[in-house]
Amino acid sequence: MTRGRFLSLEGGEGAGKSTQARALAAALEARGVPVLVTREPGGSEGAEAIRELLMQGDVRRWSAHAEALLFAAARADHVEKRIAPALGAGTWVICDRFLDSSRAYQGLGGGIDDAALLALHGFGSRGLLPDRTFVLEVSIDQGRARAEERDGVDADRFASRGDDFHAAVARAFRGFAEQEPERVRLVDASGAPAAVTSRLLAGLADLLP
Amino acid sequence: MTRGRFLSLEGGEGAGKSTQARALAAALEARGVPVLVTREPGGSEGAEAIRELLMQGDVRRWSAHAEALLFAAARADHVEKRIAPALGAGTWVICDRFLDSSRAYQGLGGGIDDAALLALHGFGSRGLLPDRTFVLEVSIDQGRARAEERDGVDADRFASRGDDFHAAVARAFRGFAEQEPERVRLVDASGAPAAVTSRLLAGLADLLP
Repeated sequence: MTRGRFLSLEGGEGAGKSTQARALAAALEARGVPVLVTREPGGSEGAEAIRELLMQGDVRRWSAHAEALLFAAARADHVEKRIAPALGAGTWVICDRFLDSSRAYQGLGGGIDDAALLALHGFGSRGLLPDRTFVLEVSIDQGRARAEERDGVDADRFASRGDDFHAAVARAFRGFAEQEPERVRLVDASGAPAAVTSRLLAGLADLLP
Repeated sequence: MTRGRFLSLEGGEGAGKSTQARALAAALEARGVPVLVTREPGGSEGAEAIRELLMQGDVRRWSAHAEALLFAAARADHVEKRIAPALGAGTWVICDRFLDSSRAYQGLGGGIDDAALLALHGFGSRGLLPDRTFVLEVSIDQGRARAEERDGVDADRFASRGDDFHAAVARAFRGFAEQEPERVRLVDASGAPAAVTSRLLAGLADLLP
């Protein structure tokens, strides 16, 4: 049995990651590829419980270091309980956010060293990396508009962070693509959803059976 | 203002750690030393929430690596929110279990490398170590008897692990005392509680003002 491929979708809020995860899964399934769609933080029972801890209470409830450890613990559980077993069974996995979100958000917002975040990932999840990571890129204005359209909570969270923060997150993701051009690909996510899905499929043609 | 001293009490279940933590605090307070008594896992609001996650559900709910990350996250919160501020304000801190319990239990039970656990502690809690750690030593039979006396839940947990496990935990703690004789001291905890407290006071005479 061939191991499944592991894909992650990254990008700022309102970039269309969860929409594209579903659309990409449908397109792959239409080609006979079995797919598991999941998301972070969360994705397994234990990781969802940790997600609750991270989301509830004041934004400043956790120090940056405690938060990074909690994300790493959640990811370890998610990888062990769902992602690795699916890949081992030949199922492709599409994950809405993965390690690179920790690197962008905790690295930037918390000022945590990228090497330290990678070391935590090595400890908790044996350093598992996606076979391919797509960074969905939209302008800050478009991300805001989409977050507002979706729901008020996300829109509030988006607005509370300011344009500088969103621009820094986008720069971080672009930096990962420069560091690892084979794994991390930038995708223009500004157009119609179907056009974006086509770009994703083109970007993983080399991985298809 | 002089920084407070940080003491931890370690040892197997039923060794009398929480009793001695209270007795030692009373003895120090009688000498005019301000003391905070706390415990792990837990000790701060965030760490107690993580403790809940660790304690609830099946014992095998978390992988050894996820568990180690959760303990490190809880400890990071505890150190940041309670231990470090108290020490900075000149208060002594007595902690019922700390890092060495993770090293003994997760190191043994989970087979996690000691260097990796120390690295997590370095990341989450800046590697804060107690000024002195007392390992309370009792025989396995005595530990079991005390755990049974205290409450049924702990006695069940004690019994479920077997004598080999408890012996291995005791060996691990003795190993830490050999590695760091200045910090980690073995204390005979088999006699009357007041006699044990006197041994603890004698063992920190050099730290007293």
